[in-house]
Amino acid sequence: MKTPTPKNFQVPGFKAAGIACGLKKDGGKDLALILSTTPAVAAGVFTKNRVLAASVILSRRAVKKAGPFRAIVVNSGNANACIGSQGMKDCKTLINRLAGELSIPEEEILIASTGVIGVPLPPDTLTNGVPELVKKCSAKGFNDAATAIMTTDLTPKTAVARFSLGESNIVIGGIAKGSGMIHPDMATMLGFVQTNARIDYPTLQKALKEANEASFNSITVDGETSTNDTFIVMANGQAGNKPIKQGSKEYAQFTAALTKLSKNLAFQIVKDGEGATKFVTVRVTGAKTKNHAKKIASSVATSSLVKTAIFGEDPNWGRIICAIGYAGVPIRPDRIVIRLNGATLYENDHPTKHASMESLRLKMQKPSILIAIDLRNGNEMAEMYTCDFSYDYVRINAEYTT
Amino acid sequence: MKTPTPKNFQVPGFKAAGIACGLKKDGGKDLALILSTTPAVAAGVFTKNRVLAASVILSRRAVKKAGPFRAIVVNSGNANACIGSQGMKDCKTLINRLAGELSIPEEEILIASTGVIGVPLPPDTLTNGVPELVKKCSAKGFNDAATAIMTTDLTPKTAVARFSLGESNIVIGGIAKGSGMIHPDMATMLGFVQTNARIDYPTLQKALKEANEASFNSITVDGETSTNDTFIVMANGQAGNKPIKQGSKEYAQFTAALTKLSKNLAFQIVKDGEGATKFVTVRVTGAKTKNHAKKIASSVATSSLVKTAIFGEDPNWGRIICAIGYAGVPIRPDRIVIRLNGATLYENDHPTKHASMESLRLKMQKPSILIAIDLRNGNEMAEMYTCDFSYDYVRINAEYTT
Repeated sequence: MKTPTPKNFQVPGFKAAGIACGLKKDGGKDLALILSTTPAVAAGVFTKNRVLAASVILSRRAVKKAGPFRAIVVNSGNANACIGSQGMKDCKTLINRLAGELSIPEEEILIASTGVIGVPLPPDTLTNGVPELVKKCSAKGFNDAATAIMTTDLTPKTAVARFSLGESNIVIGGIAKGSGMIHPDMATMLGFVQTNARIDYPTLQKALKEANEASFNSITVDGETSTNDTFIVMANGQAGNKPIKQGSKEYAQFTAALTKLSKNLAFQIVKDGEGATKFVTVRVTGAKTKNHAKKIASSVATSSLVKTAIFGEDPNWGRIICAIGYAGVPIRPDRIVIRLNGATLYENDHPTKHASMESLRLKMQKPSILIAIDLRNGNEMAEMYTCDFSYDYVRINAEYTT
Repeated sequence: MKTPTPKNFQVPGFKAAGIACGLKKDGGKDLALILSTTPAVAAGVFTKNRVLAASVILSRRAVKKAGPFRAIVVNSGNANACIGSQGMKDCKTLINRLAGELSIPEEEILIASTGVIGVPLPPDTLTNGVPELVKKCSAKGFNDAATAIMTTDLTPKTAVARFSLGESNIVIGGIAKGSGMIHPDMATMLGFVQTNARIDYPTLQKALKEANEASFNSITVDGETSTNDTFIVMANGQAGNKPIKQGSKEYAQFTAALTKLSKNLAFQIVKDGEGATKFVTVRVTGAKTKNHAKKIASSVATSSLVKTAIFGEDPNWGRIICAIGYAGVPIRPDRIVIRLNGATLYENDHPTKHASMESLRLKMQKPSILIAIDLRNGNEMAEMYTCDFSYDYVRINAEYTT
């Protein structure tokens, strides 16, 4: 799908850079740096895949120690996964070289990778890039960084939010990458968000988890989870606001802004999904529990049959009710209402009669599709976001050979 | 994939028929009957989907009452699902009419349906077919019955097994249908097996569950479960064998034969999967528990990325290890060995170096692909069977519009 050209942004006290160090065969940017000019706290969530890239093992461990942190270094073009102990060595060498160049402790650097699995990094390629990376680092470097973390993405992904907390002007800026899937053996969803807000680690981690649940954890392109998925938020406190406390009005404000920005980035990933021609929202309401709502939304959003029907612009409620039925959640089929872009398709145990199939087809031709499912069985709701399933998905993933 | 022309078969004391009663627009056979000449026991397993066709509700309830049974009536072309109370009424009318024609009690008739969801059956179409259906019923009618239960299947599916228990000659014959998926809003995997063995209901139900677990419960085309899935075994005891007791040598023999026959039918379904060009076996060994092995096999067998890679004849172990990693089972990544048609691709935490990619590619060009995963973490194993994921899957499921 067409996505708007990303806006560059700046976050007070943060710099960034993206350069080509030689990992990508086409000479594209493949090494990114995000730097806080002062020590920052960082929160993170990582892939639940049991096969982990070295960078995920290192950064997950580091984040748990609560920082402070100064930098995140990210390479694309190589996932640095499934190649034994060499992966960890290469991470440490890169961190060591970068720490020297920046004159900061190694412990203050986080790391992430994305790209092909099972291929050792070419020796020295990353470390040789470090001097240029540091030299180019500037307040205006986030677009370059967003470009340098891309693999099969068609466009770089950025988002920014600004709001006030008391007298302080808060800025949150973020970059992300992902075609929502692992391409060839290419991995990964990555998201890096920076803010000048003052907030401690446990509070930031809590806000991040909330934002992540509603954004990156609510999108699916093909149900795959990579070895490298990483989402990190850094906060350097330079806004000078009163520290954000859990449960406060300020916390709610900050988390709402972070969630909105994270959803913006996540939606960009779905729209850039391999072969995607439509953006699909699956909204489940009237569920007994939030978990039930999410399970059903997820079942519908990952159904190959539902997704091919949407590609075919077919208002196929039969596939939707079937996916609801096998979600593993107790339901009352006779109470379910299914609406597609506002048109009721199924209600009171019966398909809805439509005077004109033509108007239904016109609704299906829109680039955004809302599948609204009301279970009429409770008060909880959840949404999942996905794309349709097209020939191009198969082409992209079948024609590539290792 | 090309499948061999089905062999007709006979089972002592069973008759069958398949006729065109007018549900299928192309005039194809769409109503089937399987009849035991003497009262039989029946065991059954049914879909776990929470949205159930009327026929599933009726037959599941009937089987639990332990019979005896004389007949199974099956229609294709209409799933008789999601149309409110009319569905149940239509089932009962058909059973009533058939019971009259056969002069047997209504309680001795089981019923199943497959086809489009959410469309009421045209009045009287099925019942009007009953006299011809009964008239045509013969010992040689199983091929016709196998044809009459097809929806998007390209070929009818039959299998037969013969063996001795003591002095008795046992025959097991079965028919099945399914493209392993729900097409348009067309549903369903169906399997009906008949045997002349003497066996009681609890023992038959136990044998059926074992056979089902290794066959129909171990195949996937696209991870979808329909509203109508049904697998029923009828045993009329006419072989006169000593009743088969649980835990006996005879039970083991019978269950092995039933399992082998069920796998044969299930494999025919996979090979007839929409768009399938290859038959794929995912074998997981060295697991701590059987459940772990099956979860991992299932995760790999349902991965769109693994299945598109196989369509593209790409020995892509990276996608395989990734699907192993997100199966939700504890693993030791460094112990995993992955082999593809005998070639080791990954071992000891490293990809295996291959002198020639050409020989690997030749292995991938075969019509049957074995993905062998050794977790080296225990002694349990499981297999899943699937097909690849091709353009045709998307075409078939996107181009059809309701």
